[in-house]
Amino acid sequence: MIAPMGDAETVLERCDLLARCSEEPDRLTRRFATPALREARERVEGWMRDAGLATRCDPIGNLVGRLDGGGDPALVLGSHLDTVPDAGRYDGALGVLVGIACAEQLREAGSRLPFALEVVGFADEEGTRYRTAFLGSAVMAGRFETAWLDRVDSDGVSLADAVRAWGGDPEALAAGRRRPEDLLGYCEVHIEQGPVLDRRAEPIAVVTAIAGRTLAGVTFGGSAGHAGTTPMDARRDALCAAAEWIGAVEAEARGGNGLVATVGEIAADPGSANVIPGRVAVSLDVRHADDEVRETATAALGKRAAAIGEARGVEVTWEELQATPAVPCSPALSDRLAAAVADAGHPAPRLPSGAGHDAVMMAAVAPVAMLFVRCGGGISHHPDESVWAEDVAAALDATTRFVERLAADSA
Amino acid sequence: MIAPMGDAETVLERCDLLARCSEEPDRLTRRFATPALREARERVEGWMRDAGLATRCDPIGNLVGRLDGGGDPALVLGSHLDTVPDAGRYDGALGVLVGIACAEQLREAGSRLPFALEVVGFADEEGTRYRTAFLGSAVMAGRFETAWLDRVDSDGVSLADAVRAWGGDPEALAAGRRRPEDLLGYCEVHIEQGPVLDRRAEPIAVVTAIAGRTLAGVTFGGSAGHAGTTPMDARRDALCAAAEWIGAVEAEARGGNGLVATVGEIAADPGSANVIPGRVAVSLDVRHADDEVRETATAALGKRAAAIGEARGVEVTWEELQATPAVPCSPALSDRLAAAVADAGHPAPRLPSGAGHDAVMMAAVAPVAMLFVRCGGGISHHPDESVWAEDVAAALDATTRFVERLAADSA
Repeated sequence: MIAPMGDAETVLERCDLLARCSEEPDRLTRRFATPALREARERVEGWMRDAGLATRCDPIGNLVGRLDGGGDPALVLGSHLDTVPDAGRYDGALGVLVGIACAEQLREAGSRLPFALEVVGFADEEGTRYRTAFLGSAVMAGRFETAWLDRVDSDGVSLADAVRAWGGDPEALAAGRRRPEDLLGYCEVHIEQGPVLDRRAEPIAVVTAIAGRTLAGVTFGGSAGHAGTTPMDARRDALCAAAEWIGAVEAEARGGNGLVATVGEIAADPGSANVIPGRVAVSLDVRHADDEVRETATAALGKRAAAIGEARGVEVTWEELQATPAVPCSPALSDRLAAAVADAGHPAPRLPSGAGHDAVMMAAVAPVAMLFVRCGGGISHHPDESVWAEDVAAALDATTRFVERLAADSA
Repeated sequence: MIAPMGDAETVLERCDLLARCSEEPDRLTRRFATPALREARERVEGWMRDAGLATRCDPIGNLVGRLDGGGDPALVLGSHLDTVPDAGRYDGALGVLVGIACAEQLREAGSRLPFALEVVGFADEEGTRYRTAFLGSAVMAGRFETAWLDRVDSDGVSLADAVRAWGGDPEALAAGRRRPEDLLGYCEVHIEQGPVLDRRAEPIAVVTAIAGRTLAGVTFGGSAGHAGTTPMDARRDALCAAAEWIGAVEAEARGGNGLVATVGEIAADPGSANVIPGRVAVSLDVRHADDEVRETATAALGKRAAAIGEARGVEVTWEELQATPAVPCSPALSDRLAAAVADAGHPAPRLPSGAGHDAVMMAAVAPVAMLFVRCGGGISHHPDESVWAEDVAAALDATTRFVERLAADSA
């Protein structure tokens, strides 16, 4: 085994180098199929080759590096190479580079695996350019919907043309699909993007599931009126109704184990200081790793909104915009990952993921596992995103031990 | 005394005729110094002359009709002729036309008053065109600030040019000022613009005071974060803090006798469904006829905001944007007005005015009184604004009896 700290530092240096591959001079923005992403992919491909991986790009532009082993089915390590606008440098890239470092460690240790090891750099997870997430892993998981090819970006460039422009083949996306029998599993290292590990002072965690999400639009329709001439008892103030409900949303989520619920958008109409709001529209985002918990809480919040509306003479409308079930990680893979974390000498806490990841798509064709790495203050999607070298070393060590455990069990 | 119902119906027919004087073909909009307002002023001037009043326009374009009496000082009846955009037809116009009808009734009854009776149609109360209210009454009250002449409307026309364009004289505005010794009082009939009289099934009310108003901007500065990855106990959600405070605003106002408090504006930043709001800005509008009640309530709400912020780790900033003291109506005039209402056979409830009126300005140079007329559903600043002919008859009858009482007391 190579000294993990040196390899972790290489991973971090490569994160720094990739952060220079950006569409914008002063900040990191690397959207799907842009020259910046192509440049990043070329650098990563070079590191893959240095690690002894045979590389190729699939029809949408995912980068795949493969180390053949004693059997055809592959264990896939990976994450994504694209970023949000004004991004941090670890979201996505870290998982790809830890995968490469793991492959390199295994090769240098002379390990001969009984399966192939692949490292994937997905071409799009954030969905920033085409406003749909997981373009890369959707192709690999056979969940790409061909209608997406007609989507256009803010410059009017269709997704089909963007795929062509950077060397992909939009007509051949089906060929990018991996069959379940070819995959042993998918394991993704990713920064937590939340504050839990940092608050607990723990470096890494095994992910239990990727939370399901309900997204709803709720409107409160009261009656606008003059702020000076309408007595309090003659009001049907839509904002007061919404405010009461926002308090209920917070209380409901605080009472539920691991439940998170957020009102992120609010608009009051007419929106004038001297007019009682007649209509208020808000968003509701509810997430939990257990779909039943999420659905029960969401239903309770719907009832609560209706009750508040009835008590206030305010009409409440509720529109469910999205309901995505939770994606459980594979217990078998996750238990092995937890054992590998313990082997590496770290506590192995289990955490759900509140954010989506490529593992959501890959779960359609393979058992999935994820390893979270602590990030400073939980900050992500921001240039202040940070990780500690020790934690990256822990993640790399655990990943390598995980692959070795899987190899031992498969032998 | 002329049959009041017939005169009230004339007043309402004239309100209908004035509603045709509009800048827009399909709705009533009549801003300061526009051709629409000039047309309305000409119609009103004709009705004044028909009623035996000698008419003139002052330097800003207020229309003044005068019936000389046994003494020089004048009792002024009036209101404004301008409107908000998409207005109703009674806000302002009703008071001017009741004043003319009153003068006509007195003349036809052969009354010889011991003072002059003037009816004024103010040229601007709403302030729609130059975003400052009371331009007309400010001139008459000597409270016009000459810097206002440089204000420009949305077409870039300065107030000075607008005054000139419709025959006024911006250099001579000081000459429009009335001296206190020339004024016995100012009495304004106006629709309530609120729902109190309609809910109580009472036609008219004597106004006690025009409420003072505090306008503040309050911001809650928390911490933005991922709606999926940030546990509830790690959040500093600015919107949850604001919502808790909005509930407190409502509770404070409901607990205060006659207090009204309104949050009419709210903006959440970044305002995305999947991001915890990091910053929320709201407006606060507090009104009461008693300045101490208003100030005490406002201070309590400031303390409450600070306490909520402290408990939540959310930074609260408070900016007082405006603090306008209440304008009390003259007890002597108001008592006479109440007696006149009772003479006319109506209950004489007392109400504060939550909205501003020309009486606010006129109080600087004369004792003021106001008579509210019930409006349907409290609706105002809207084409659905409505009044009942019986209520207008009651207001006209009470106004005439008020002038006669004043004449008797002055004789």
